[in-house]
Amino acid sequence: MTNDHAAHDAVEVITAKRDRHELSDSQIDWVVGAYTRGDVADEQMASLAMAILLNGMTRGEISRWTGAMIASGERMDFSSLSRPTADKHSTGGVGDKITLPLAPLVAACGVAVPQLSGRGLGHTGGTLDKLEAIPGWRASLSNAEMLDQLESLGAVICAAGEGLAPADKKLYALRDVTGTVEAIPLIASSIMSKKIAEGTGALVLDVKVGSGAFMKDVDRARELAETMVALGTDAGVRTTALLTDMATPLGLTAGNAIEVAESVEVLAGGGPADVVELTVALAREMLAGAGVTDVDPADKLADGSAMDVWKAMIRAQDGDPDAPLPVAREQHVVTAPSTGVLSRLDAMSVGLAAWRLGAGRARKEDPVQAGAGVVWHARPGDQVTEGQPLFTLLTDDEHRFERALASLEGGYDVAPAGTEVTPQPLIIDRIG
Amino acid sequence: MTNDHAAHDAVEVITAKRDRHELSDSQIDWVVGAYTRGDVADEQMASLAMAILLNGMTRGEISRWTGAMIASGERMDFSSLSRPTADKHSTGGVGDKITLPLAPLVAACGVAVPQLSGRGLGHTGGTLDKLEAIPGWRASLSNAEMLDQLESLGAVICAAGEGLAPADKKLYALRDVTGTVEAIPLIASSIMSKKIAEGTGALVLDVKVGSGAFMKDVDRARELAETMVALGTDAGVRTTALLTDMATPLGLTAGNAIEVAESVEVLAGGGPADVVELTVALAREMLAGAGVTDVDPADKLADGSAMDVWKAMIRAQDGDPDAPLPVAREQHVVTAPSTGVLSRLDAMSVGLAAWRLGAGRARKEDPVQAGAGVVWHARPGDQVTEGQPLFTLLTDDEHRFERALASLEGGYDVAPAGTEVTPQPLIIDRIG
Repeated sequence: MTNDHAAHDAVEVITAKRDRHELSDSQIDWVVGAYTRGDVADEQMASLAMAILLNGMTRGEISRWTGAMIASGERMDFSSLSRPTADKHSTGGVGDKITLPLAPLVAACGVAVPQLSGRGLGHTGGTLDKLEAIPGWRASLSNAEMLDQLESLGAVICAAGEGLAPADKKLYALRDVTGTVEAIPLIASSIMSKKIAEGTGALVLDVKVGSGAFMKDVDRARELAETMVALGTDAGVRTTALLTDMATPLGLTAGNAIEVAESVEVLAGGGPADVVELTVALAREMLAGAGVTDVDPADKLADGSAMDVWKAMIRAQDGDPDAPLPVAREQHVVTAPSTGVLSRLDAMSVGLAAWRLGAGRARKEDPVQAGAGVVWHARPGDQVTEGQPLFTLLTDDEHRFERALASLEGGYDVAPAGTEVTPQPLIIDRIG
Repeated sequence: MTNDHAAHDAVEVITAKRDRHELSDSQIDWVVGAYTRGDVADEQMASLAMAILLNGMTRGEISRWTGAMIASGERMDFSSLSRPTADKHSTGGVGDKITLPLAPLVAACGVAVPQLSGRGLGHTGGTLDKLEAIPGWRASLSNAEMLDQLESLGAVICAAGEGLAPADKKLYALRDVTGTVEAIPLIASSIMSKKIAEGTGALVLDVKVGSGAFMKDVDRARELAETMVALGTDAGVRTTALLTDMATPLGLTAGNAIEVAESVEVLAGGGPADVVELTVALAREMLAGAGVTDVDPADKLADGSAMDVWKAMIRAQDGDPDAPLPVAREQHVVTAPSTGVLSRLDAMSVGLAAWRLGAGRARKEDPVQAGAGVVWHARPGDQVTEGQPLFTLLTDDEHRFERALASLEGGYDVAPAGTEVTPQPLIIDRIG
């Protein structure tokens, strides 16, 4: 009985949270550790996760849970690098490919970006799923490879190693398939445990708000942002957060290969204005956090230096940045029902359609389709003409169109020509 | 897309219930069927079960869920038997061994009892776990064996076959380890799906109320009882329910082998008064439901005919009713702290202690200890003398005593000698 690990059991911890009690430090340490070791089963953690989602956690519980996740694995150390480090995390949105242009851009400005990313969670895509659409590209690097690449190129996007917050890795995959993605305590602790264990010096959080985000309203988003900024600051990471709009999807694509293509457009100095705006704003936060204030990231998109880092970064991970990207076998075009102005485009509808087309997964073992997704040919405020293509749906499985089309139904409005459409500001607030 | 089974996915159903929507008939049929087939994973059903527990289900959802569980397997048919059938189900309590004397007793009165039972769920023991303490006894019978035994002896207690409500069998084991035992909709549908599929003509439900029961208060117990009586009646089963006290544990033992021994005492015409009272009351309900009104079950305990059926029933399932029962390797005695009257004995404290001693399981793969459990040497209202044995704790693993003792702490009171202790009535109400 002196063994702390034997002092609890899973049913006791689950029922405590189910019955709205505050979990003790010892219960949290035990359940996170035991789940990592496999002594608490997936079905037990799933039940606990749903109880946490529905009954919540105190600040103290979240902090302890984050610490237990960090303690479940190793911590990285970038203090040997010749430049400062900064990282970014987005809470996930539809069409959110920002990491792809952002990491090479910040590296081109002289700050090292150790971007440890994940796979798809719910209806939003995962950065690794997108990059894996690039022929040959490999997500897994050893810690030594990661350090080498950070020193030589300044940017790496790769899978979090098995050793880093293994509890989170396991829990992240589980939440994805058990309807427990949206719990604020689990989102905050998942993100911050990895970022703190990863050892970045500065961190910017892109907390999304709107139909396509985990946070549907700005108050919950602010709560999440403040929780995470506090967790980061307490752990010695210079952390800020932007609250950004996710009522409308980002850019013009949601999927895997098609988002890579759009990111490359941004790196080439073009691309949709909203993607460029957010990429540059987040780059400025990261540079400020790393103490670099004399470089304007917009210049590094214009002069091609961010693109150079991108290509080198993809090659360093065995990818071919110039190879053709995979294309879906089947496509289906949705045309504009009338002439006028696209007055609304709902991020959740688009995200669900992309997910149902095969860009995301329903079970953690499922593969994703590299070519699947949705392209939209207008953004809110754009003129459209009756019969013009409004959406292109892409998938390898024709039978997926029906449910994807059902997701899009009611997800957009075309207003009469001349209607004034005032776009929602992309960046809603800054915290930190 | 015409395949109804492909029309849903697990995350959609989980999030619907999580977000407090009423599940559609189609969602319920799909998720129960897909879980039975293994297309919905344990962790997904665990998450859904917790959402059902915390957010509830409408009467319509419960009815559909019950139907889907019945439809997941075969239905039995006892219409070929020469006597009517009646069955009993208890919602589970501490020290509740009533099935053991009850089945042979009712059989001795001329009504066939097809008692399909389960293994341990939470802190209350399972009837099969108890009977498996008898050397040689086997829980699994084929349908043919069951029918033969019902015809020849009139009583069978065995495991529900693989074919009967397989969805329930799987879900019952899952709930046990995921803190989702206590959900009224899942309790009602679990019990009634098996009983309806089993094909009994009459049914009495023993719905327990109090600290040691799933239902802590009489209103929730009544809700559960009414839900189940309605489900049974609608399905053509003559169903009644008794609400009975479970603030105090039943009899003088909670465990496996020790509860078998107590049951045999009752069959021999002795045993604790409360166990006898409840056994006879339930027997009368079953006999009335089966249309037998001219036999008094109390006589069949007194004249030994119930014991004869018991021995024949144990032998028919390869058990030796006269063999010594397993004995725990370790024991620890708790003595009375003062002289006076035992004024309170808390069923949950005793049940938790027995469970922690090894009489129940923490994971569905775990074995139970045949000899483990708690014996109490006084019941509320009994005189006790300082230093006399109050509890005997039994286990094979000495290290289990500490946590079992912690469970008992605060679980009983000794009042000054002469204090009037008015016992709670055992049978609180009758529904149906």
